[in-house]
Amino acid sequence: MRSARSRLLLGAVLFCSASLIYLATSGIQCPPKSHRHRWAELNMLLANQSQSSRPNLFPEDTPLIFIGGFPRSGTTLMRAMLDAHSSVRCGEETRVIPRLLAMRATWSRSVKERIRLDEAGVTDQVLDSAVRAFLLEVIMGHGEPAPRLCNKDPFALKSLSYLARIFPKAKFVLMLRDGRATVHSMISRKVTISGFDLSSYRDCLTKWSAAMDTMFSQCQGASGGGCLPVSYEQLVLRPEEEMRKLLNFLELPWDQAVLHHQDLIGKAGGISLSKVERSTDQVMKPVNTDALDKWVGHIPSDVLHDMADIAPMLTRLGYDPRANPPDYRRADAIAPPFNSSQSLRTTETPHPS
Amino acid sequence: MRSARSRLLLGAVLFCSASLIYLATSGIQCPPKSHRHRWAELNMLLANQSQSSRPNLFPEDTPLIFIGGFPRSGTTLMRAMLDAHSSVRCGEETRVIPRLLAMRATWSRSVKERIRLDEAGVTDQVLDSAVRAFLLEVIMGHGEPAPRLCNKDPFALKSLSYLARIFPKAKFVLMLRDGRATVHSMISRKVTISGFDLSSYRDCLTKWSAAMDTMFSQCQGASGGGCLPVSYEQLVLRPEEEMRKLLNFLELPWDQAVLHHQDLIGKAGGISLSKVERSTDQVMKPVNTDALDKWVGHIPSDVLHDMADIAPMLTRLGYDPRANPPDYRRADAIAPPFNSSQSLRTTETPHPS
Repeated sequence: MRSARSRLLLGAVLFCSASLIYLATSGIQCPPKSHRHRWAELNMLLANQSQSSRPNLFPEDTPLIFIGGFPRSGTTLMRAMLDAHSSVRCGEETRVIPRLLAMRATWSRSVKERIRLDEAGVTDQVLDSAVRAFLLEVIMGHGEPAPRLCNKDPFALKSLSYLARIFPKAKFVLMLRDGRATVHSMISRKVTISGFDLSSYRDCLTKWSAAMDTMFSQCQGASGGGCLPVSYEQLVLRPEEEMRKLLNFLELPWDQAVLHHQDLIGKAGGISLSKVERSTDQVMKPVNTDALDKWVGHIPSDVLHDMADIAPMLTRLGYDPRANPPDYRRADAIAPPFNSSQSLRTTETPHPS
Repeated sequence: MRSARSRLLLGAVLFCSASLIYLATSGIQCPPKSHRHRWAELNMLLANQSQSSRPNLFPEDTPLIFIGGFPRSGTTLMRAMLDAHSSVRCGEETRVIPRLLAMRATWSRSVKERIRLDEAGVTDQVLDSAVRAFLLEVIMGHGEPAPRLCNKDPFALKSLSYLARIFPKAKFVLMLRDGRATVHSMISRKVTISGFDLSSYRDCLTKWSAAMDTMFSQCQGASGGGCLPVSYEQLVLRPEEEMRKLLNFLELPWDQAVLHHQDLIGKAGGISLSKVERSTDQVMKPVNTDALDKWVGHIPSDVLHDMADIAPMLTRLGYDPRANPPDYRRADAIAPPFNSSQSLRTTETPHPS
């Protein structure tokens, strides 16, 4: 009887061992991992470092951070400050992402083209998967891995609503700045933007206003408070207060390093800056208020006179078009109602989606 | 003693069982599969149906088939005949693939832009991964799955060398046709191509020749004989002979269905045609020779007189520029030396890469 039980147990041991050996050698083979899957895995391992509790496994669930706005509005400063955070990597402007997004927009704009693509099976869903795949490869590939990846291409936020559709868990940071300062910086530094006449404050301010209208409206319309407008003036005047609000919005823990980004430039895991960024930007220096009113005295009087009509977005964003300069220290003067109510509210009670 | 052995064995059984249960519930979790991984898996399952023996697991190893050439050169007929093959799916023109490829080409063309992108970490390797991901999502997403996926966008082959770099196992089929017939078809059917003046045979033939030069040179330069030029005239005159040569080149088994594509139009697993293709093409009919010399008598005499200079590619591809029409039945007259030697040789001894 005892011998029979022994043999039975021995048989069971052999069966179990064989099963384990089989599983170990052949059964546990996963398909090779793409960049994106490696990223998802990394994200899972590092999930504890961020406040977000659930790992994100599907490409569309990647909680990307998109920083944008009009060029010369502090987008580089913002991304450098976020790059200083131990869990975030933004990196340089990719340049190609806004171009792909602009091309994608043209495909949907023409009804005839839309019908032709649909007939060929190239539906919105197929195009969205393709654009998402392209963006993820570029965003992941052009810099170091990090638990939260971020992209800064100023005009990418002209496609904010589209980006929110293909990355429903993404967060958007829209930089706002007094358009007079932005345009003066553009013109004095000869920053060319296609379609802008750098010899004319009137032309540049008109087009600044139109571009900001496009981006700000989409930011306001982002579902679940997914977009936070950040004023450049407030950021340099009250960096800690603004960055605490921002990190809370991004569901990231506080990291003192964001207030000392200049110490991390060029260091491993720190901030990578291209030659163009190093030479043309103030981003090498600590956060400072030097650039706030450099524009005063440079805008022709006829343009100043018509300012409210030329650039209606000044008023909408809370910048007094008749004050030269306005008192940037009065937070209520340049924080649009949307900024201080809707966004903060949704930050405190995260949307279920 | 026996009792001690029993206890030892019982312990081993319990340990093995616990290990198995642990593995079954948590250890054997693979990351979720993207379109591309599902495709790789499908490819592995169906590998026996094709002559290729090894499964392809990485996106860059996908043995795609690209069909291209100048519009109105039989590219739709070719893709319909291949679509009739039980292992192949081509589908309609995606329209967006050549546009992305053209945009990608501009990024590399400017040295200044190339340097800026490199500085931002957006290297050629990163861009290639992104373009490959975009293309695969579109090619896989816009039609039914199949063991061999194929893409037909005529002008995509202007980027043949680039496609061969990002998909080293891809095969290319370049359709050739007498440029006089191609241009007559364009003009008489009012097929608009940007940059072409449909009121001028001279202009269209000049530009046909330039475009064919670009594509044919890259086809000749494809490493490992990865590109097969197929003459439209030979295809309609000797369909079985040409298709046997082609399927051999593509490492696909013979399938009689390719000679009766018209029977499979609109059927499941058969050939999907868009409204545009149905209305403007002869592809609804069985393979026929009706279109071979429709152009004769329509080209202005001054253009006929200068033909050899206007369209030097006619001579290079073996079409006599002074014969109106040439004798298309003489195979040697329109099969360039490259076609009948290099390509066939490499077909018979597949390249190790």
